[in-house]
Amino acid sequence: MTFPWLKGHGTENDFVLLPDHDGTVHGQLDGAFVAALCDRRRGIGADGVMRVVRTSASGESPGGGAGPWAAKSTAGEWFMDYRNHDGSLGEMCGNGVRVLALYLLTEGLVDAGAPIVIGTRAGDKTVTVEGDGMFSVDMGVAEVRGTSKITAAGRTWEAQDIRTGNPHAVAFVDSLTDAGPLLDAPEHDTETYPEGVNVEFVVRSGLQHVAMRVHERGSGETRSCGTGACAVGLAAALADGAERPVTYQVDVPGGTLHVTCTEDDHLILTGPAEIVARGDMEWLA
Amino acid sequence: MTFPWLKGHGTENDFVLLPDHDGTVHGQLDGAFVAALCDRRRGIGADGVMRVVRTSASGESPGGGAGPWAAKSTAGEWFMDYRNHDGSLGEMCGNGVRVLALYLLTEGLVDAGAPIVIGTRAGDKTVTVEGDGMFSVDMGVAEVRGTSKITAAGRTWEAQDIRTGNPHAVAFVDSLTDAGPLLDAPEHDTETYPEGVNVEFVVRSGLQHVAMRVHERGSGETRSCGTGACAVGLAAALADGAERPVTYQVDVPGGTLHVTCTEDDHLILTGPAEIVARGDMEWLA
Repeated sequence: MTFPWLKGHGTENDFVLLPDHDGTVHGQLDGAFVAALCDRRRGIGADGVMRVVRTSASGESPGGGAGPWAAKSTAGEWFMDYRNHDGSLGEMCGNGVRVLALYLLTEGLVDAGAPIVIGTRAGDKTVTVEGDGMFSVDMGVAEVRGTSKITAAGRTWEAQDIRTGNPHAVAFVDSLTDAGPLLDAPEHDTETYPEGVNVEFVVRSGLQHVAMRVHERGSGETRSCGTGACAVGLAAALADGAERPVTYQVDVPGGTLHVTCTEDDHLILTGPAEIVARGDMEWLA
Repeated sequence: MTFPWLKGHGTENDFVLLPDHDGTVHGQLDGAFVAALCDRRRGIGADGVMRVVRTSASGESPGGGAGPWAAKSTAGEWFMDYRNHDGSLGEMCGNGVRVLALYLLTEGLVDAGAPIVIGTRAGDKTVTVEGDGMFSVDMGVAEVRGTSKITAAGRTWEAQDIRTGNPHAVAFVDSLTDAGPLLDAPEHDTETYPEGVNVEFVVRSGLQHVAMRVHERGSGETRSCGTGACAVGLAAALADGAERPVTYQVDVPGGTLHVTCTEDDHLILTGPAEIVARGDMEWLA
């Protein structure tokens, strides 16, 4: 089996892209194949896989599908068939969608002068080309809930519950090392987060400027998390009582992101996208 | 820049192979390019890179070169131009040389029925095809020195000093978890090991059967270490006063290796090799 591939990353959240424009190369991706590709020792290695396919050929059900994974895309010509590291279906990835937009732009598959609408299992996402390899994506409206307790390295913090596609617990800490090596998931309130939670530890770095570490459910500590950066930017803006629109710089271990809270409560995530290699691959494993 | 590549591993010690048979594709590899390829987030990801080149075209000086890295290869048609994860020149890699032998065999570049002599910066290495994807390599004669103290996770052990191309400190422990998470290098005697040391923690699993973890200088804890497995097999044989030839099974986190101590003190390392993907790559970073 030989197929085209690319490798790219956004703030070191890295992906194998599988171009499959008309759905004729891979069809429905096999989860075991995705997991094998993503294995960093026994495969190529990536946080996830994105099959790049026209929405009309995606095998999804735009606009009217049933079931939890039915695509809500209606306007996007291109669909982001995102798979997690373990091969499971993913809804959306805020760092990945920028890399996908870079691919579409580089290949001349979209109009360079207009916003790029990309269908995802979490609905259409609009990506704006900012120049210099930077892209913005409208991540939609977050849901702000209450607070709960998070414990790591023997210490407990109050954390803000924010939903940005994924459930997040955002804890402001004195130092990013306070949470320890984060080899295990921080303890959390299982009533608040029955399906687990991504935990962000945040410090202030300056005016509208924070730095964070993140422990992602199912993945452990990662170099970057797009929905987590959005939750952190929003939590900081709320804590500051900031007037909107307002933009926060959010430093993650893998680079720098910016989160804008708009007047109508949308979160705009801005960051870099890079494609480092492309070619054909014969898979032998 | 477009070039052929393969990805493979031996007990999860993983490599990007760069075929460059006549030295016309890459010439002398650039260290920064190797490091970028090996970066697991910003590149493809690997423990190291092997440029596969005919010894005559390797740019090395077989048999008579000057300087510390002058190749000592004389009989091997093929040369293993091994580079470490950080782009620096490597002498030899016991897990990598099996993957290289599999490549040469699969491509029909060597005689399937005979031992494969591969030139390396540590001299010629002879690989024997054992069938079922298994290969043996004669790792040469180890140097057994004295003992020193190794400390990790607040505990101290006596460790055997064995040199198998790399310096090793082999400590027998009650449980592989005793050494803790191994986030930092174990403390070692810097007079014994002025250039650092690979530390192996070993438990007995049965008759001529041990299991180990390894912390490699410069790399941290890894899934496998070929020279480390050799040191551990030899240390166990010495501790047992075993008559030679004798073979020990050495379980590493990434799989299973076997180490044979021959009557003339050679260490033969036997283990699997796998190539998971191959193709052409255009490097864009």
